[in-house]
Amino acid sequence: MENNTEYPPGTHVLLDFWGATGLSDVDFIEQALMNAANRCEATVLYIKLHQFGKEGGVTGVALLAESHISIHTWPELGYAALDVFMCGKCDAENSVEPLKEYFKPANFKINRIIRGKYE
Amino acid sequence: MENNTEYPPGTHVLLDFWGATGLSDVDFIEQALMNAANRCEATVLYIKLHQFGKEGGVTGVALLAESHISIHTWPELGYAALDVFMCGKCDAENSVEPLKEYFKPANFKINRIIRGKYE
Repeated sequence: MENNTEYPPGTHVLLDFWGATGLSDVDFIEQALMNAANRCEATVLYIKLHQFGKEGGVTGVALLAESHISIHTWPELGYAALDVFMCGKCDAENSVEPLKEYFKPANFKINRIIRGKYE
Repeated sequence: MENNTEYPPGTHVLLDFWGATGLSDVDFIEQALMNAANRCEATVLYIKLHQFGKEGGVTGVALLAESHISIHTWPELGYAALDVFMCGKCDAENSVEPLKEYFKPANFKINRIIRGKYE
């Protein structure tokens, strides 16, 4: 086994949005995820979104050749949890402003985690 | 808009496994994700796994009623990045030992992030 200290597969950006809009609109959310992937020059392999009842929250993922973007929304709270995990040449950071432009959070928090770096 | 300081939707556990096994076996990975979901008493809505060529890495997700479990593997490195994000009454922590039992990492790192807690 190698610890691969020289090989961090990627960066994982965890976004918490409060006071956000569009959280029960599946088509809008799909557009937002596709746009975020495009802005990172990532390749979408597959996208799946599930809505909990009419006008309810949405949970879903865009599987990428470079890892994934996921979203879980609580429209009744104005809250959404998004993750953007990208490996290879793609930079997850490039998704942050596009996602903020779509969902227009009043407040947000960002956690950035380096994945695959052995310490 | 409410900041919902009393409403943390869930816990996100990010697992990095090194020296792990079974990383190019799609059926095995599906079993591992299903078992992890069951151990957390989570409801699997949908599971999708994609393999990059024969014997290559696997990228995939189990969408849950309580959020998601994702996996991305680099079998050539023995490395896998797993995420377990669970909201509601499910505890993502209960997936950690089952996932270690499946993939038998020689080394691992765990990041735990509280999601949805406004600070």
